Amino acid sequence: MNLEEKVKYLLDRQEIQDVIALYSQGQDLHQGDDGNIAEQWSKVFTEDAVLDYSTGGYHSDKATYREIIAWMRGDRGNNGVMNVFSNWQHHMGIPNVSIDGDTATARTEMWCTHRAKPGEDGRTWYLDDAVMFHDKLVRTPDGWRISYRYNGILWIDAFPTIKDPSGVWDSTTF
Amino acid sequence: MNLEEKVKYLLDRQEIQDVIALYSQGQDLHQGDDGNIAEQWSKVFTEDAVLDYSTGGYHSDKATYREIIAWMRGDRGNNGVMNVFSNWQHHMGIPNVSIDGDTATARTEMWCTHRAKPGEDGRTWYLDDAVMFHDKLVRTPDGWRISYRYNGILWIDAFPTIKDPSGVWDSTTF
Amino acid sequence: MNLEEKVKYLLDRQEIQDVIALYSQGQDLHQGDDGNIAEQWSKVFTEDAVLDYSTGGYHSDKATYREIIAWMRGDRGNNGVMNVFSNWQHHMGIPNVSIDGDTATARTEMWCTHRAKPGEDGRTWYLDDAVMFHDKLVRTPDGWRISYRYNGILWIDAFPTIKDPSGVWDSTTF
Repeated sequence: MNLEEKVKYLLDRQEIQDVIALYSQGQDLHQGDDGNIAEQWSKVFTEDAVLDYSTGGYHSDKATYREIIAWMRGDRGNNGVMNVFSNWQHHMGIPNVSIDGDTATARTEMWCTHRAKPGEDGRTWYLDDAVMFHDKLVRTPDGWRISYRYNGILWIDAFPTIKDPSGVWDSTTF
Repeated sequence: MNLEEKVKYLLDRQEIQDVIALYSQGQDLHQGDDGNIAEQWSKVFTEDAVLDYSTGGYHSDKATYREIIAWMRGDRGNNGVMNVFSNWQHHMGIPNVSIDGDTATARTEMWCTHRAKPGEDGRTWYLDDAVMFHDKLVRTPDGWRISYRYNGILWIDAFPTIKDPSGVWDSTTF
Repeated sequence: MNLEEKVKYLLDRQEIQDVIALYSQGQDLHQGDDGNIAEQWSKVFTEDAVLDYSTGGYHSDKATYREIIAWMRGDRGNNGVMNVFSNWQHHMGIPNVSIDGDTATARTEMWCTHRAKPGEDGRTWYLDDAVMFHDKLVRTPDGWRISYRYNGILWIDAFPTIKDPSGVWDSTTF
């Protein structure tokens, strides 16, 4: 590669990393009843991107990102599957990316935690899952976008909490 | 952007990511009674940087990084709020960054775990929290530094441990 | 640095980050009985790299990556120490890296979760640990490789699970 090509490669890598990070921030800037994930995800996915979230419980291995948002967060008065939770984090690690001209593939680890609304006993619990995303990306006039994503869940489980024994941090305010 | 400007942008992005990573390493290279976080944080924050850690329990929405260190780790014989813990990790994900000349804004997810000193029953427990930092940065003669940070806690809770059922890993040595 | 040197630095940083990410993907692309980690780690470590995993229980402070794989995943009919688990994630944060010509040092935080095979009561549990890797890297004809790694465990502990109270996610399928 000549110098211009090297710089183009580096800019592509930076932009692809940014798109992957923006996915998680689309989830996490919108907690609880705020379901406006599309504010970020419209800059993450192409409109016709195919998302396979079947391992997470979605009924099909093909969905648009807007269908996934409706499934997660609800739509027109219907609850989403995330309605059992009030708070969450989607934390993205450093991705491996291969670029071939105007397309790319990426693998990225994600660490997810979801805080459940308290049950009758007043205690919350967590649903945590560990994911490896397998993505295809495409260069568009608006920048790199994810055109295909496979949600590769490594594990998912529920965990109990306890009352803070130190009495210093009271989670009820979050 | 011409080639020089593109390279400057990429160097700025790399340096800003490094500053954000150095924050967590300032915490994690100093475990337990070692409170010398300033070894790293003096290269992370400007001396007059404003830190809003009020969501984490700090009594004001304005503090210097040295005030936050004293609050966390103790000062002149006073215990810090982290004194209830012996070990921790502050794990930073990939940041979203916008640069405008000599200033920048950044959002970064952090995953925090804190191992409590064992109680009377000999069992430890964990205080975990999920954070999104909202930062402002400034280019200084010494490099990029954080000039404002909002500690956006997404959730915080306490979790129990169990004795390792496999008997292979004995956490008491850490 | 002139422009060529700056671009070389940025490419080195990107490649070193990629090598560090590939370590975790070597673990996580091979879950359960699939122990073929060397598919990735042969591109992560030099063949004579020295790995100090003694804090994790390895009997020596010097091992090759192939010896660590055999210890973790088993070899010639012998179980590895990870055999008590069925699923895991090794999630790498953003690294701090210093490059000096054809060598480099890096510090990277890793968040690890390991799902145990269920016990007699049918319940699984987790062994989680928080790590800071201290690495030395070297530029080889095939690219950057890790030549020395210290596995700096910050903490390690076992955690209980509960049956998903929502009844929505059933972890038994993962």
